[in-house]
Amino acid sequence: MGDINVTPDRNQETIEDLQYKGLKIIQNKACFCFGMDAVLLSSYVRLRRGDRVLDFCTGSGIVPILLSGQNKAKELIGIELLDYIADMGMRSVALNGLEDKLKIIKGDVKKAHQLVDGVFDVITVNPPYEKENEQRQSPNDYLKAARHEVHITFKDICKTANRMLKCGGRLTLVQRVVRLPEMMSTMRAHNLEPKRMRLVHSTVDKPPILVLLEAVKDGREGLKVDPPLIVRTKGGEYTKEIDRIYHRDEE
Amino acid sequence: MGDINVTPDRNQETIEDLQYKGLKIIQNKACFCFGMDAVLLSSYVRLRRGDRVLDFCTGSGIVPILLSGQNKAKELIGIELLDYIADMGMRSVALNGLEDKLKIIKGDVKKAHQLVDGVFDVITVNPPYEKENEQRQSPNDYLKAARHEVHITFKDICKTANRMLKCGGRLTLVQRVVRLPEMMSTMRAHNLEPKRMRLVHSTVDKPPILVLLEAVKDGREGLKVDPPLIVRTKGGEYTKEIDRIYHRDEE
Repeated sequence: MGDINVTPDRNQETIEDLQYKGLKIIQNKACFCFGMDAVLLSSYVRLRRGDRVLDFCTGSGIVPILLSGQNKAKELIGIELLDYIADMGMRSVALNGLEDKLKIIKGDVKKAHQLVDGVFDVITVNPPYEKENEQRQSPNDYLKAARHEVHITFKDICKTANRMLKCGGRLTLVQRVVRLPEMMSTMRAHNLEPKRMRLVHSTVDKPPILVLLEAVKDGREGLKVDPPLIVRTKGGEYTKEIDRIYHRDEE
Repeated sequence: MGDINVTPDRNQETIEDLQYKGLKIIQNKACFCFGMDAVLLSSYVRLRRGDRVLDFCTGSGIVPILLSGQNKAKELIGIELLDYIADMGMRSVALNGLEDKLKIIKGDVKKAHQLVDGVFDVITVNPPYEKENEQRQSPNDYLKAARHEVHITFKDICKTANRMLKCGGRLTLVQRVVRLPEMMSTMRAHNLEPKRMRLVHSTVDKPPILVLLEAVKDGREGLKVDPPLIVRTKGGEYTKEIDRIYHRDEE
């Protein structure tokens, strides 16, 4: 990945307090900052004690860092393709003293099964939402990689997830609702059966934009859909559930 | 279909006022009566002036009878397999004086494309919700046929719909949410691209049970999801939207 067109300015890095179990994360606005989708994904993941968990396209490591706060996983690994972003993730791991629990690996998800096959209980991913050639793309390679399928497609993700999950293991992800039919058929084509789904609405009377989805490798057919996740009340405040997800109710 | 195990008692027939444009329908409790799902489906169908519309598994004809009230379709046809049910539908057509607009045909949907191929703008279906061997089945053949896939599967429906729709034609249906992944991949496997979806919740904080879905033959990828359709307020009353769908707001 020596052909990135932006030289990240480390002076633009900030340390963000996640307001959850004292966890912090390094971010750089010039590249890509995590959004609410990553936080919603982390809260949607069901962890069991002793789970081995892998996060694809981990970026600055937000999902496994938040999951580490649950103290359930035996092993957490995040995979990130871009050198600087993976490095930022590793420094966040050190900043939180999580070296024994969480590893950030620099590498290509499409080849990750070469490391180790069929051993993970959970794979999470907050993938690029846009297809490679759709919409206007950012001229910034970091933003482009985070938003568009330039390095990895949804099909690549399902293919690798199928190989790296145990039988009965769960793939949990967030995506745009607009891609739901393609997602469901691609998952099923890779023996990942969608079992649990939740749609995220900005307000109760608005169409959902995001979908949280959990598929089970070699699972039986049968989807359970949760009640809608509403982000804001009609008055514009965050709902109680969003406050709970952001742990604002603990303050 | 001479092997039906129930002899329907015509004395159990009732005439129900649909409270919409003076329309009425004959029902027989001993066989199967239409439910809210059929009414929600009818209201979800988008008709354009001059459309040729076909309703699979039409039962007593509730969906095309309600659609006739919109005065948009050039032609409405309902197909029903079971003799007595189709006959009841034909009598409802006569009762409403709709003979020029709406035909009920007794026949097997799986063979319907033998009549005429690729000419319909819209196909609607309120299919059996349960797979053939799932759940406890009714000993009454009429109830079993309406609820279980004993005579037709979801795949059969998609296969025939693909053959009978024009390019760009719409398949609109209602199903249980639990089958959504299988539905989406089966539709896509038959070139029916899901384009519009709405989940039906009994109340806003409950999981949805039903899904309304429109697929377009040879359509481009991209799903639009509508805001949730909520049946009842937390106080247990029908919501304003349900009142509107049932035309109770016109009373």
